Amino acid sequence: MQLALDPDLSDYLIAPDPTAARLTRGVRGVDQDGAETHMQVVEERPLTIYLNRQEIVTAMTIGDYPEYLALGFLRNQRMLRPDDEITRVDYDEELETVVVRTARQTDYEDKMRRKTRTSGCAVGTVFGDMMEGLDEVRLPQTPVTTSALYALSARINRTPSLYLAAGAIHGTVLCQDDRALVYMEDVGRHNAVDKIAGWMLAERVGGADKILYTTGRLTSEMVIKTAMMGIPVLASRSGFTAWGVEIARKVGLTLIGRLKGRRFICLSGEERLLRDMDPASVAEEPRRSGRKGEA
Amino acid sequence: MQLALDPDLSDYLIAPDPTAARLTRGVRGVDQDGAETHMQVVEERPLTIYLNRQEIVTAMTIGDYPEYLALGFLRNQRMLRPDDEITRVDYDEELETVVVRTARQTDYEDKMRRKTRTSGCAVGTVFGDMMEGLDEVRLPQTPVTTSALYALSARINRTPSLYLAAGAIHGTVLCQDDRALVYMEDVGRHNAVDKIAGWMLAERVGGADKILYTTGRLTSEMVIKTAMMGIPVLASRSGFTAWGVEIARKVGLTLIGRLKGRRFICLSGEERLLRDMDPASVAEEPRRSGRKGEA
Repeated sequence: MQLALDPDLSDYLIAPDPTAARLTRGVRGVDQDGAETHMQVVEERPLTIYLNRQEIVTAMTIGDYPEYLALGFLRNQRMLRPDDEITRVDYDEELETVVVRTARQTDYEDKMRRKTRTSGCAVGTVFGDMMEGLDEVRLPQTPVTTSALYALSARINRTPSLYLAAGAIHGTVLCQDDRALVYMEDVGRHNAVDKIAGWMLAERVGGADKILYTTGRLTSEMVIKTAMMGIPVLASRSGFTAWGVEIARKVGLTLIGRLKGRRFICLSGEERLLRDMDPASVAEEPRRSGRKGEA
Repeated sequence: MQLALDPDLSDYLIAPDPTAARLTRGVRGVDQDGAETHMQVVEERPLTIYLNRQEIVTAMTIGDYPEYLALGFLRNQRMLRPDDEITRVDYDEELETVVVRTARQTDYEDKMRRKTRTSGCAVGTVFGDMMEGLDEVRLPQTPVTTSALYALSARINRTPSLYLAAGAIHGTVLCQDDRALVYMEDVGRHNAVDKIAGWMLAERVGGADKILYTTGRLTSEMVIKTAMMGIPVLASRSGFTAWGVEIARKVGLTLIGRLKGRRFICLSGEERLLRDMDPASVAEEPRRSGRKGEA
């Protein structure tokens, strides 16, 4: 069984579009009985990101919101500064490139010499010192109610998505109180987060009163990106890594994992939690929630 | 409920060690009721890989089998050639470095200029052209029986692992017929695959008669690494990406996904499948198989 999908997307500013032709492909195969099967699988295509004249990285992405992905990646890598004036962002679908242009002259030749291959699903390429800039991060003590966490979890799990349609994809959702605002998906979860960072940058939206929800693991890179975006709360239905917990505690970020049905575990920043709802009154998730549990 | 674990690891050459102190850390937190909880979370630590005098990459890894990880990473990046004489591999736990030394002089300055940030859980950093070398790959027509696939899936799901103990980790298993030989886990699944590639290189084990099983998605990078290792069959309980399927078909690799209980889907290389078992005779997985479905 699967959770009933909620077709009402009115609270979203950006919601997934499982029907977008460019994001999935129909393929033929056979099942265990040798019967021909047709299935939709998610696309995975290269996108090369340039900052002014310099080629920075080629990301493998599902391909939507390339401008947000480029802006968010460069911002989360601190190659774009908060005060940078972005003069142009040009996406070329044929060349599979995005060029971000700034008023400031940029050259990250040295920074790009040091590469870190980060972990698991949160994986990306981090240039320079991963922890760079974290010392300056000051996260506000914005409270988060447990009723909002439960509402967001239920809302997001019932939102029609590429994940539910094709699987093998990750979702990250920017939330405010109990409202899901921007729901991005990508084959690389780091891309989904960067697309949200890019949207926040382009729309000049701050993170202080937001909650970030991810379908994936709470690794060091997820925690660092969330902190860099100025968001004080990161929640997931998945689990933790030790370094993710350590960094969350260091920067004072509220880290909530294993958020399923009425259950969750908070391993950092409990002081923000406002327990305004009795967990016993929250419905458990059906045995199979429809989350395909792709890893 | 959870599958009964099978404590008999006698068929494994390398099995997971969920009890290894260095791989997980006990942390305190609170649950939804405010009750204090203790849980084990997996470690995530940097490991910097050198080839001779050149620093290649820093990987975030759980930290076991660093020598295999370094060897496998360099081999899968084709920085180590099949005929390279490896003169020494030195791991320094304190410095968190592995230095691989070869008789041949190496310099990958140019190759490292081009970086690709690959997808999702299969993510790593790929230097140079991802497809480089695939044209030379010739995969043997080794048949794979459906009875072996079912036996491996059941075996692996019942093997005590860090995944079942702490979650937030990926597993990759090198198999032969219906035997699971080497079961590696890591916070980065690309690391788990590279550790297996490193073991094969160090032990001079070929891939022609092997099956590779992964807990994660069948992305382009997983398919490419499997082909580079000369393994003709890649199976997973998770789903597919379009490019993963496309590359598998291009190199003639048998790609099996959604392998759960009696069910699976084959999207490439069906000609290797020997249907020697009636799927109806295979037990379905319990509703919750104990796989935490971390993403």
